[in-house]
Amino acid sequence: MTETQFDSRREAVAAQLPERQLDGFLVSFSPNLRYLTGFTGSNGNLLLTAGKAILFTDPRYQIQAAQEVTCRVHISKGPLVPDVVAAIGKLGLRRIGYEPARMTCDSLDSLRGHMPMKSTLVPVNGCVEALRMIKSTDEVELIRRSVLTNSRAFETTVPRVKVGMKESDLAAELEYRMRRLGAEKPSFETIVAGGARSALPHAQPTSVRLANGQLVVVDMGALQDGYCSDMTRMLFLGNPTAKVKRAYRAVLEAQLAGIDAVRAGVATARVDAAARNVLKGYGLAEAFVHSTGHGLGLEIHEPPRIGKKDKTKLAAGMAITIEPGVYIEGFGGIRIEDTVIVTDTGCEILTPTDKSLRVI
Amino acid sequence: MTETQFDSRREAVAAQLPERQLDGFLVSFSPNLRYLTGFTGSNGNLLLTAGKAILFTDPRYQIQAAQEVTCRVHISKGPLVPDVVAAIGKLGLRRIGYEPARMTCDSLDSLRGHMPMKSTLVPVNGCVEALRMIKSTDEVELIRRSVLTNSRAFETTVPRVKVGMKESDLAAELEYRMRRLGAEKPSFETIVAGGARSALPHAQPTSVRLANGQLVVVDMGALQDGYCSDMTRMLFLGNPTAKVKRAYRAVLEAQLAGIDAVRAGVATARVDAAARNVLKGYGLAEAFVHSTGHGLGLEIHEPPRIGKKDKTKLAAGMAITIEPGVYIEGFGGIRIEDTVIVTDTGCEILTPTDKSLRVI
Repeated sequence: MTETQFDSRREAVAAQLPERQLDGFLVSFSPNLRYLTGFTGSNGNLLLTAGKAILFTDPRYQIQAAQEVTCRVHISKGPLVPDVVAAIGKLGLRRIGYEPARMTCDSLDSLRGHMPMKSTLVPVNGCVEALRMIKSTDEVELIRRSVLTNSRAFETTVPRVKVGMKESDLAAELEYRMRRLGAEKPSFETIVAGGARSALPHAQPTSVRLANGQLVVVDMGALQDGYCSDMTRMLFLGNPTAKVKRAYRAVLEAQLAGIDAVRAGVATARVDAAARNVLKGYGLAEAFVHSTGHGLGLEIHEPPRIGKKDKTKLAAGMAITIEPGVYIEGFGGIRIEDTVIVTDTGCEILTPTDKSLRVI
Repeated sequence: MTETQFDSRREAVAAQLPERQLDGFLVSFSPNLRYLTGFTGSNGNLLLTAGKAILFTDPRYQIQAAQEVTCRVHISKGPLVPDVVAAIGKLGLRRIGYEPARMTCDSLDSLRGHMPMKSTLVPVNGCVEALRMIKSTDEVELIRRSVLTNSRAFETTVPRVKVGMKESDLAAELEYRMRRLGAEKPSFETIVAGGARSALPHAQPTSVRLANGQLVVVDMGALQDGYCSDMTRMLFLGNPTAKVKRAYRAVLEAQLAGIDAVRAGVATARVDAAARNVLKGYGLAEAFVHSTGHGLGLEIHEPPRIGKKDKTKLAAGMAITIEPGVYIEGFGGIRIEDTVIVTDTGCEILTPTDKSLRVI
């Protein structure tokens, strides 16, 4: 990102202050800080006003902040709050927005306890997240690179999968390749789960060895230059039964139907319904226990949510996953997931990886 | 951990309710949930009373919770809060503790908004964390295993380090070996930083290549069976200058002085002072920009903190790091860190790794 991009993002937040009758906005959530300033440290507060931006952090990040951040940086020797509040007083700010979905009750209490008499804290959620939903061309390119790294890591690892391999070793292999291909780390804990364990939608890899006749779910994502990717593919060790093939076909059809429904202007619930209806047709509606997808970017899960009751309208530039699945206790689970970018006419599927059941 | 251990941990929390005039306690922080129930999912609430324990989670974790958790499990179709509050009403609980340092302002608002008329939420911090500070014999063994995995990953990777290697590739190699040796993942983002970048205490590995004449800091930890380890060692590529050798000696002496000061009954500030005074003697007090160490266990950073102003008294069974460092802009940084267990007579150093500067 260029300096100008950070400037204009901060201006876009500052531009929202008058309509909310705010004099300032305090940002404490890391992904929002990174989005608005470039700062990647774990401890920071950004105070934004119509004309000013000050990032508060601690001495551990002094050198790093000087390198990453273009706005003013203030290094606090102790906790950040007293210095933030002193700045609020000095700038004479009366109404200051904060992020109640991101701030702990204790942090708010501490702010309130130090606040100048005439100042008030006002809860304001989603102000930065709303901007973050629509990705810039540069951000789409970063997500694309993350997706490609992730897919390459998958493709170069699949030939090494065999019966007797530990789930955890397969996960380690995938993550190692991801990193050697340029990722900072996985964007979430890689899921590798074989057999009945594949029915756990959020299974963590264990030291159990993959066995013949097993479905294996691989759900993986890379974090590269701060941006996430997310993909799920299925392996089968041996000869899939008719039941496996039928369930796989159902999920694949559901996933394609979900992708087909994506287009700027469409409510996310309609995308969810498109995938869910296919599974209903197969008598598998009950086995689909989560929503169809989620936004991703600086975070692996960010707005919009693609679920039954979500009313967000898709817009061009949103980066979302489409990932229906079925989970049947004792039998196993099947999920297929791509990362796509919403366009005015439909979507661009970033994930290049073949979607057939990989029989090994 | 055995079923009985989880039972007695929950009893230890329940035993604190009367003195705090509470009828129930609501736990939402993941490491605390894991400590009290064994549940490793990302979304859960535990409602504890004198005689009852109910874990609330969502359908994604239905199968997993049934496998992991011994207390009663309630699966909520939507958000957990309405079901938690319904249980509070049904059990007739009046004063319910919650974790304000761990709960977002929005979660608290949502709870408050649903709460029965006659019930009150009471902020109670550190109730579970205080128990977690003192590790059981089983926990010490888990931390020991994590430390050994971490140290083995370091020792088997060091022979592969050479000039021209990318920081990020060295980090990938360390993490891969960690996982192949039994870790679930790193306990934090592995730090590999060469040359002037080693002066960033929390540097993330970049694609910069290691060069001759460089100090390289390697700060790494494993997460194994849920428990963390943490170690920092220094490499030098080429022939260290007298300035490097002197600074290294200063940090090593400080680290040994810190370890020497550890003993049950000693205030953590005294351990910090022991390390800090050595660096002061070398004229390096200003270059030591963080505290001497921290507790670790289910989290990589947990109480106690070993800092200038911390008054916690060390107790037998605490697992802490001792990690003084010096950071000099333009020159580089040096840090040496071990994981130790506090005993009545001093401490047991778990980290077996040689502490000399590794010249490569």
